[in-house]
This record gives sequence, C-alpha cells and structure tokens, in this order.
Amino acid sequence: MAEDQNILLEKIKEQGDIVRKLKASKESNDKIKEEVSKLLALKAQLKPEEATPQKFTLKTAKGTRDYNAQQMTIRNNVLQKITNVFKKHGAECLDTPVFELKDVLTGKYGEDSKLIYDLKDQGGEILSLRYDLTVPLARYLAMNKINNLKRYHIAKVYRRDNPAMTRGRYREFYQCDYDIAGQFDPMVPDAECLKVVTEILDALDIGRYVLKVNHRRLLDGMFEACGVPADKFRSTCSTVDKLDKMSWDEVRTEMINEKGVTPDAADQIGEYVRLNGGTELVEKLLADEKLSKCKSAVEGLEGIKLLLHFCSLFGIKDKIVFDLSLARGLDYYTGVIYEAVLTQPIKIGNEEQTVGSIAGGGRYDNLVGMFDSKNKQVPCVGVSIGVERIFSVLEAKLAAGEISVRTTEVDVYVASAQKNFLDERMKICAQLWDAGIKTEQSYKKNPKMLTQLQHCEENGIPFAVVLGEAELKRGVVKIRNIITREEVEVPQDDLVQELKVKIDALDRKVMNGPVV
Amino acid sequence: MAEDQNILLEKIKEQGDIVRKLKASKESNDKIKEEVSKLLALKAQLKPEEATPQKFTLKTAKGTRDYNAQQMTIRNNVLQKITNVFKKHGAECLDTPVFELKDVLTGKYGEDSKLIYDLKDQGGEILSLRYDLTVPLARYLAMNKINNLKRYHIAKVYRRDNPAMTRGRYREFYQCDYDIAGQFDPMVPDAECLKVVTEILDALDIGRYVLKVNHRRLLDGMFEACGVPADKFRSTCSTVDKLDKMSWDEVRTEMINEKGVTPDAADQIGEYVRLNGGTELVEKLLADEKLSKCKSAVEGLEGIKLLLHFCSLFGIKDKIVFDLSLARGLDYYTGVIYEAVLTQPIKIGNEEQTVGSIAGGGRYDNLVGMFDSKNKQVPCVGVSIGVERIFSVLEAKLAAGEISVRTTEVDVYVASAQKNFLDERMKICAQLWDAGIKTEQSYKKNPKMLTQLQHCEENGIPFAVVLGEAELKRGVVKIRNIITREEVEVPQDDLVQELKVKIDALDRKVMNGPVV
Repeated sequence: MAEDQNILLEKIKEQGDIVRKLKASKESNDKIKEEVSKLLALKAQLKPEEATPQKFTLKTAKGTRDYNAQQMTIRNNVLQKITNVFKKHGAECLDTPVFELKDVLTGKYGEDSKLIYDLKDQGGEILSLRYDLTVPLARYLAMNKINNLKRYHIAKVYRRDNPAMTRGRYREFYQCDYDIAGQFDPMVPDAECLKVVTEILDALDIGRYVLKVNHRRLLDGMFEACGVPADKFRSTCSTVDKLDKMSWDEVRTEMINEKGVTPDAADQIGEYVRLNGGTELVEKLLADEKLSKCKSAVEGLEGIKLLLHFCSLFGIKDKIVFDLSLARGLDYYTGVIYEAVLTQPIKIGNEEQTVGSIAGGGRYDNLVGMFDSKNKQVPCVGVSIGVERIFSVLEAKLAAGEISVRTTEVDVYVASAQKNFLDERMKICAQLWDAGIKTEQSYKKNPKMLTQLQHCEENGIPFAVVLGEAELKRGVVKIRNIITREEVEVPQDDLVQELKVKIDALDRKVMNGPVV
Repeated sequence: MAEDQNILLEKIKEQGDIVRKLKASKESNDKIKEEVSKLLALKAQLKPEEATPQKFTLKTAKGTRDYNAQQMTIRNNVLQKITNVFKKHGAECLDTPVFELKDVLTGKYGEDSKLIYDLKDQGGEILSLRYDLTVPLARYLAMNKINNLKRYHIAKVYRRDNPAMTRGRYREFYQCDYDIAGQFDPMVPDAECLKVVTEILDALDIGRYVLKVNHRRLLDGMFEACGVPADKFRSTCSTVDKLDKMSWDEVRTEMINEKGVTPDAADQIGEYVRLNGGTELVEKLLADEKLSKCKSAVEGLEGIKLLLHFCSLFGIKDKIVFDLSLARGLDYYTGVIYEAVLTQPIKIGNEEQTVGSIAGGGRYDNLVGMFDSKNKQVPCVGVSIGVERIFSVLEAKLAAGEISVRTTEVDVYVASAQKNFLDERMKICAQLWDAGIKTEQSYKKNPKMLTQLQHCEENGIPFAVVLGEAELKRGVVKIRNIITREEVEVPQDDLVQELKVKIDALDRKVMNGPVV
C-alpha cells in the first residue's frame, strides 16, 4: 500500500465521520450534500487498486482452512485428551521446524515424494515443508546421536494431496505422534504403541474400532513365497496398501500391469491377503507349506504371535486383528505395521459418516541410520493419530446440534445500568483480573443493560457484577446469577472473595457443555 | 532409497546379529572370521550413497532449531502462563494455515516484505509462509465478514531475517497475539491490551519492564509540523523506528540521505523524539506551538492522554512511558502503538543478558478494509508477545543450573528384581494405565534392578512398584518411595488405591522443580 494512500484513507475516514455526524444531527440537506461531495472527491483520488482493494478471491490456500473458536475448542479438547495419554506413558515432548533441508526428506517416502511442498529458492538453502513427523524425528536422533527416546510430537504436516475436506482430508493437517526409539526386546515397545492407541480411542469415545496389525517381514516373505522378485517387494507392497480403497480385482490388475508381477504370483498373493484373524491364523500360517519355508515370513509370524501375546496381557486383544492385507504405503517400515479403523459409520443427525482409518504406524529400524555417516541404526517404532478425521466428525456433530461447546471461560461480566460508569467498571475489572478471576466488560462507554446481560447469556458467563450509583455510594455492588437471575448485594471489599466462592461452587460440566 | 537396498540393509543387520552372537558366545575365531567376511561382502554390495548415506550436513534449516524435551517443558510452561492471561480476559482461540495466498501478504509490511518466505510454484496457487499473525487475522475477519472479535493466536511465523539465535532471534519463531476487533469507544480496548501485557510479564516474572506508548497520528502530526511532506511520513517513520538500535546522528543521516527529509526538518524531529514522560508531557505538547496547530498531532495527544487515564484506573500507570521515539516498523498501524522493554539486563551466572523488546503492538484500523471489496473497515487493536527472547533467557538459566525442569510426569515405575517377570510387569502396567496412573516400565525382558531404580532417580519418578516371586505368591507387591527408599507391601488388589493416595499426597512443587 502506497504511503500517501494510507493517509488518504485516514482523510476519507475523517470526512466520513463528518458526514455521519451531520446526518445524525439532522443538519440541512445542502450542508450534508456539500460534505458528501468532499467525501466523493477524496474517494476519487484513491488509486483503482485501493478503491477495489480485493483483486483476488479472498480464501485460504487450497486444502487448508481456518479454525474458528468453536473448532479450536473441539480441537484443543481432543489434543488435550491425546496428550494426556502420551504423558501417562511417560513420553517427552519434542518439536522440530516446519521446514527441513530438502535432502532430509528425499528418498524417504517412495511414490508419495511427489506430494512434498518445496519452498522457493530465494538464495541460501533448498527447503521443503515436513511431510510427516517421523523423518524429522529420525533426523533429530541422528543429528544429536540419541539412542534412546520416548517422545510425542503434535504438529501440522503438509502434503500436496487431493484434498477432500468434508471427510477431514487436508493439505495442512495435524499429526499426533508417539514413538519409542532404542534397542529393546522384541515387541515390548511395539505392543505399548497399540495400548496407547486403544487408550486414546477410548478416551475420545468416537465409536467401535479395530486395530489391524501385520508385519513387513511377513509381507516380504509372502511376496517371496509367491514368486515376486525381491526388487519388486516395495512397489508390490504399495499396491497391496490400496486394498482398503480398491477391490482385489483392481489391485490385481495394477500389480500385473504396472508393477510387473506375474498373474500367477498375483493370484497366490490374493489368497493370502484375504486372510485375517488372531493367534489361530498365525499358527495356521506357520504351518503353511510355502510360508514356513521362508525365513522372513516365519520371522514376521513369530513377531505377530509375540505381539498378540503382549496385547492379551495388556487386555486389548479383542481389539486387535491380524490382517494380511494391511501393507502401509510408506517406504521406511521394516517390522510390525498397524492401522486403527472405526468399524461402524458415525451417525450425525440422519446421515452416516464413514471415517475409516484414524491411526497408523509401525516399526522403522533403518531410518535413523540413513542420516548417520556410519549408517548407525537406532531401531524405532511409533504410531500417528490422524486427528483431522476425528475433528471432522465432532464438527459435524456440532453443526447438527448434537454437541455444544463454550468458546471462552469467562466467569464474571462487569456491567452497569447507568451512564458514565466506565471508570468504575475499569477499576472493578482490574481488581478481578488481579485476583485471577476471568472477567470481561463492554468496550463501549455507555452500553445498554439489556445488551450486557444478553452477552452473558449468549456466551455462558455465569455471573455479572452490576454497578449502580446508589449501591456504590453505600460501598456495595450487586452480583447477579445469569441463569437464576438472582441478585445479591455484597460489600465492595468482599467482592473478590464472594465471587471466588460462587465460581468454585459452579458445576463446570454443565457450564462448558458436553464435548464429544 | 532403492527397494533392493532396503532388503540388503536387512540382510546386513541379520548377518551382524550372527556375528555378535558368535562373539558373545565366544565361538572359535575361525568361525567368527568366516561370518565377518560374509558381513563385509554384504556391506560391499551397498551402493556408495547407501554406504555413506549422509552426503549433506545434518542440520536444521538456517535460523531454525529443534526444541528438546527440556526446552519444550520451558516453552509449554511459558505458553501456558500466557494463554491463562488471554483466557482471563475472555479471548477466544483461533488458528489459520501456516501459508497464505501470496497476494494476502503483499503490500502489508512495507520495507520488511523482502523477508517473506515464498513457496515454490509447483502448479496451482502462489503461496507464502505467514510473516505475522495480524494480517491472517485481518484476512479472516474480512473473509468471514466478522465485525467483532476478541481472539488470541499462538503460532509460529516466518521471516528470512538475519538470525541471532543466541539472543532469541530466529527465522521460525513463536508469536502470541491478542487482538480486539470492533467499533468501540476510544482507547478502551487499547488500554486492555496494555493491561494484558503487564499481567503476562508479571506472571513470567522475568524482571522489571516498561511499556512504551506512542501514537501514529501524533507521529504524522509531528512530521507534518516539522515540514516533512505527507508522502514521506511512513518511510520517515520506519527510520525513526531504528532509534532503539542506532544513534540519533545515524538516524538523522538516514533520514536526510535515504528518505529525502531536509536537514532542518530532521533537526526539528530530533527535538521531539528525545522526549518521553507521562501525562505532564502530553499537556506540554498540547500547548506546543507547532503541534497544537496540527489536527492529527492533537488527536494523537488526546488519545495518549485518555490511554494514560485508563492505565491509571487499571493500576498500571507506573509501568507506562509515553515515548515519542517509539515508531514501530510495520506499515499497517494507524493509532496507538506500544512496545514492552525489559529495563535491566538479566543475570545468568556471571553474565548479563540484555533482552530489550519483548512485546509490541498497536491499532490498525485500515487493515481489514484492504481485504474487503467495498473497503469496509473493522477497527482493530492488538499486541504480540515475543516469547522467543523469554525462552532464550530461561534456557540460559537452565544451562547455568539456576532452574531445573522435569520433562515427564511419570509417577510410577513398574520394576522387577527377578528374571522372566515381563508378563507380570505388563499386566501391572496395564492395570495402572487403565486407572489413569502415569506409569513406565523397562522395554527389556530382564532389566537389572539397579538400572531400573537409577532410571527412577534420574527422571524424578517418585514411586516404584517392585514385583518379586515370593510376594506375588502371597498376592502382594512392594511400593518403594524412590527418595526415602522406604518400601511397603500392599495387596495386589489394593495397589491402584494405595498408589493414588500416595500420589495425591506428593508435593508437586518440589517434584517438578522450579520453572522460571
């Protein structure tokens, strides 16, 4: 904006004020016309781009959105519940920058790398926005030579994907990650990740779910046993991963036509990936003629068997399904992989919303080593909660009136029925703020009493302090209960104390409304 | 990473395991040598880029940093205190995307626009990272046609500035913004912003401070009175803004040589910008021969006078200084401007750290209108807390051992002195987690007792549940107090109840260590 334009805008504002005042005081039409013509003359001086300042569509970037106060209340509530579970399991909190050197991300995501956002080369380093929180964690561990860490990280990640915003698929979205790094005994941290997911989904109470588990070594073994060449394991894997969105026939066609798998091999894979179950399925596959001959398949199956045992000790076995069709797209997984899926659509009003996958993760033992000059490995396992889908369900419930939220926590509104009480209101506000009481007042000099009380009702503020001349002379003020409309007089000196007692006695659950 | 390379890495890992096992079981040297040579042969197959995977320097992008667990604990503590004050004043929480359409940011920051990070054009929209939280707020208000809002926003912003990281100047840094939008009576919301800043700085307790205030209308009037042409007001203003880093002589030279101000005008400005004080200075300037003739100067002075009156009602007048040298660089301010400055260096060990400005803001009545097709204005005023400088002070204190932090909140560690107790430990952990108790255990099958107790001591975990065969047979477990080393036996059925009583009785202040 040009500097003189800014001053011109000021002048237009001033002239507008003059016109408004004349109109308000019902001056003669001639006088008003004269000032209006001055105003129009000033506006004519505005450059075209200032007169119509908005030349572009006013919107957020494709696939992104603002969070308004109600959405933020829901979001903060969900993230708090997730954080509580992470902390219950002793995880530390970490944060990394939103962008990384592009080299850090290169070669970590397989086919999905094309979805990475790059920054413009403005001189200096070549940077990209983070695509997930896992690769930055691996970079952090390698850079600081840390061998042992349990951390959580809640932050936004960026993918130039095809957004489907009504279903909670964005280009900027939150991930809530929990990872355990270190050389430990088999499946002990892996099982805890599953326990963490169950605790989070139970705390969020958004419906029935299953946790699907599988093992990359078993997938490799299965591909080997079915005659897929080793160099096609990963790409075949990423095709199997599409089974939740495509039919087996479509997946089979892609395997044969795009991944170069023979029809015979594809058909053999098809037999396996239809299987799911529990320990009995593991036993059956351990006895399977083809798989039992393949070292990595046996290793994977033994891993799943141990994992299921630990899940049974954790009391979560009824929520776990061993599913051979689970593949996970990302390149970096090396061991167990998991995915949490809601098993029933969520009813919102008269509509049903299918949510599908809401958490996923697995073991990635080689990722840290890719950043180490001596290829030193730090084995890792972790899980990521896909909260956007949870947000979108709750927001739909909010829109349908099934839940309600309060967007502020104000307990007291300082009001006055009379004119010229701004100074007194300000003094009382400062007194309450300094005592730690959440307080608001009108920013107008002489607000109407009705407007003030309406503000309290609309915003769920439980109490109003009402100032009046007669009361102030006697050294008292009124406290009004907004819901019951009951009013009590208290000495000004006791105001803080009285309010604190009343606030402590509030039933918060009712005040803040049910969330979820 | 090529797919077959991933499999090769697996094979190398397996072969490595074989070699380690042979060495551990003290097999013959020949046998070990044979397996080592196999290992080396596998490693030789690695492509050069895999054998030395780290071809680039392992670092975060220039001007950015990771936050480790201790830094995050400090950061979350500071942000929580700030959030509490924002909520105490009834602000709602909003969030906007990290990037905006480039057009949204264009023309809002004057000379600083060159510091904006752009995203690469990968097809589709042209995007930039947000430079502050104020312009996205204005875009949000205009886009949603909101006339009235009190919101806070805590998020990272991005500036391609010259970083000085030891002093808390980064390219990615937090801003904590509090803004009031709406048509209200003069200086009422403006004064509350100052009150909010004092409450935050008092809560953070990082030393004495002053809040400098000034008024853009007064600056404009002063420039006008000193003979600066109107089209040079804003650029002269951004030169005055440098007075906190440059001497008057340098500023004067820049005004004359770069901004085209006459030496005479510059000298007159020099007389004014040296002034600071309180209400008595306002009165003196209202009587000033030159300024009293200039409408905008009088308007600015009347504004400051009213603001100081409200600050006095709020009980914060002793912290406010009316300072004519305060200018603020950004283009969009139109009324009051403010800046909070620590008045004494902070002692850390034997060194003193000068912190300087830690908050700033002002009124920007024309910014929202720049996004509205009809140029409809929504007056706004707000303040932004520069927390990075506060973080850097606290981190320096942490490094000097003057404060300590605990990075997890774990209350109970489930331990065992005997081998093969993993299953029992897992069952107890699940029991405690399900009861909401923050619990950890070793991820090793057979951890040493000493290691487990050391972990508790190092991490400030107050209690250990110690499992033993003899006790379990009798249906009891031991609870050990890590600090006193006292042990009590409790029936397994009472474990949750007993632990909850003990945890509730903890003195948290001591446990978590002083922060700040």
